[in-house]
Amino acid sequence: MDVPPVWFMRQAGRYLAEYRALRAKHSLLELCHHPALAAEVTLQPIARLGVDAAILFADILLPFEPLGLGLSFAAGEGPQIERPIRDAAAVRRLPAPDPAQSLDYVLEAARLVASALPADVPLIGFAGAPFTLASYAIEGGGSRTFTRTKAFMYQEPDAWHLLLERLAEFVGCYLAAQAAAGARALQLFDSWVGCLSPQDYRSYVQPHTRRTLALAAQSGVPVIHFGTGTAPFLEDFAAAGGDVIGVDWRIPIDQAFDRVGPTRAVQGNLDPAVLLAPATVRERQVRDVLARAGARAGFIFNLGHGVLPETPVEAVRAVVEQVHGG
Amino acid sequence: MDVPPVWFMRQAGRYLAEYRALRAKHSLLELCHHPALAAEVTLQPIARLGVDAAILFADILLPFEPLGLGLSFAAGEGPQIERPIRDAAAVRRLPAPDPAQSLDYVLEAARLVASALPADVPLIGFAGAPFTLASYAIEGGGSRTFTRTKAFMYQEPDAWHLLLERLAEFVGCYLAAQAAAGARALQLFDSWVGCLSPQDYRSYVQPHTRRTLALAAQSGVPVIHFGTGTAPFLEDFAAAGGDVIGVDWRIPIDQAFDRVGPTRAVQGNLDPAVLLAPATVRERQVRDVLARAGARAGFIFNLGHGVLPETPVEAVRAVVEQVHGG
Repeated sequence: MDVPPVWFMRQAGRYLAEYRALRAKHSLLELCHHPALAAEVTLQPIARLGVDAAILFADILLPFEPLGLGLSFAAGEGPQIERPIRDAAAVRRLPAPDPAQSLDYVLEAARLVASALPADVPLIGFAGAPFTLASYAIEGGGSRTFTRTKAFMYQEPDAWHLLLERLAEFVGCYLAAQAAAGARALQLFDSWVGCLSPQDYRSYVQPHTRRTLALAAQSGVPVIHFGTGTAPFLEDFAAAGGDVIGVDWRIPIDQAFDRVGPTRAVQGNLDPAVLLAPATVRERQVRDVLARAGARAGFIFNLGHGVLPETPVEAVRAVVEQVHGG
Repeated sequence: MDVPPVWFMRQAGRYLAEYRALRAKHSLLELCHHPALAAEVTLQPIARLGVDAAILFADILLPFEPLGLGLSFAAGEGPQIERPIRDAAAVRRLPAPDPAQSLDYVLEAARLVASALPADVPLIGFAGAPFTLASYAIEGGGSRTFTRTKAFMYQEPDAWHLLLERLAEFVGCYLAAQAAAGARALQLFDSWVGCLSPQDYRSYVQPHTRRTLALAAQSGVPVIHFGTGTAPFLEDFAAAGGDVIGVDWRIPIDQAFDRVGPTRAVQGNLDPAVLLAPATVRERQVRDVLARAGARAGFIFNLGHGVLPETPVEAVRAVVEQVHGG
């Protein structure tokens, strides 16, 4: 069996001492805004972990700054949107910034990283999917029930679809610009789309994700389409596009391969919490994912969501070694 | 087609003006602790909504008081556990209170409600399932990632299983006591179990849920086994027991019927957020659930989780009328 490539969502982050050292001096947004700092953070896990790709350090909500919504991160809390979208007028008022121009600092970081990386380590760019971005824009931050998001979707369907169209255009072009700046793969994060019923996913979300992924695909680089909680409608999720379908731990990865069909690669899917387990439990669960993926072509080993801040670095490195067969 | 019965999880609650009026004078725990008040709240939605069952007003975390963990509810926030379980010693230190004795105030409320209800409106009792209770006990409150819970489960498997055994015994006997006090059906809430992978559900949770449901079944009344996010492992979830399987909106209800098999009833599964939608959208989604359930025996119309506080009462009543064919 070929050795699968391995990298981790949020492989640059708070669980790394060198990241925490930088964060002691700079806010999250400062790290994102300064290409040299973002590039440094992007490169931190490469040497430390031996992963097979670099993932551009950025935040999926950065588009909210040029879109005029206001973005901040309170210490220890999640993102806060200063001017959340609460009615149709707010959608119609949205400006139409140029993604490449307004987020050029992200592209500059991509250029710096791409030129610094060894040839055999590709850079992966990413962005948030229209639904997940809309949920933050409407809720004003994170949510467990997505009540405001769904209420808006049901009560203002025209404004909802306009909002997701606008986000799809912005994000699709933003991803393509990251590829032009040196990213050799792209990942679209529809992190919270699993809060929807299968029929609501198809009606309210899928066309916009499809548009986003089509725009990103024009760049010519492979695109990973990721979400959590997508097991109930994985066929619909995959039908929206993506060369690689990223799944969480809620579906055995052999079933994910079967359900997305033979033309797609699959990325996943260890529960990030398993990195907090004793070595024997962790090794057994990694072995299980590898065994289920078996000899299938196009398997990428990853977690089912981002590395948790509490994760010991040694556990992450041990997983890389186990996947690489060390 | 027969008219299915309809009731709603959290049908007594903040969306009702008469409930808010009582809450202005009493805390949530005061309402629970005083049988006359709990009975009054339980009965509030019966006349207002025309639902086919009363659901005992209580909280799934009440067992934490006799178990010595300390329970409070901060205004506008979720539950707070004063002495969360963070190590194996804390599990071993747990007292073994008698459920019927230590929560007699809940049973007294059940007796009051059962004697007040018309003969054709049964009372439903309920309790939290071992996994969901353990998650609150370990996290110290609500969680989005259940990191501490999973870390404990992986790092302290013996203490984990001991904790869930203890909770299973307590909750199983507590449910049976509710039936003895007049509940004519029982519901076990494993609200957050969908955070687990299918294999972890089978290894760490299923045996304890099975034990709980077996104890509850000894009462002789039908038992509803409910969880959210269970679509990925619904067969395993159903295999743990329950005469009725309660599902959320993440699985079309015809698929739920097919997957739990012909011997079970199914309860669900409108997204609670649909009650915030305009009438046309709400009516279409209710129609869709009814059409998918079709003529299947043993269908109970419900939401896929509790009524949201923002819900207009008229929307709840309109759903009851639509289900009843009015």
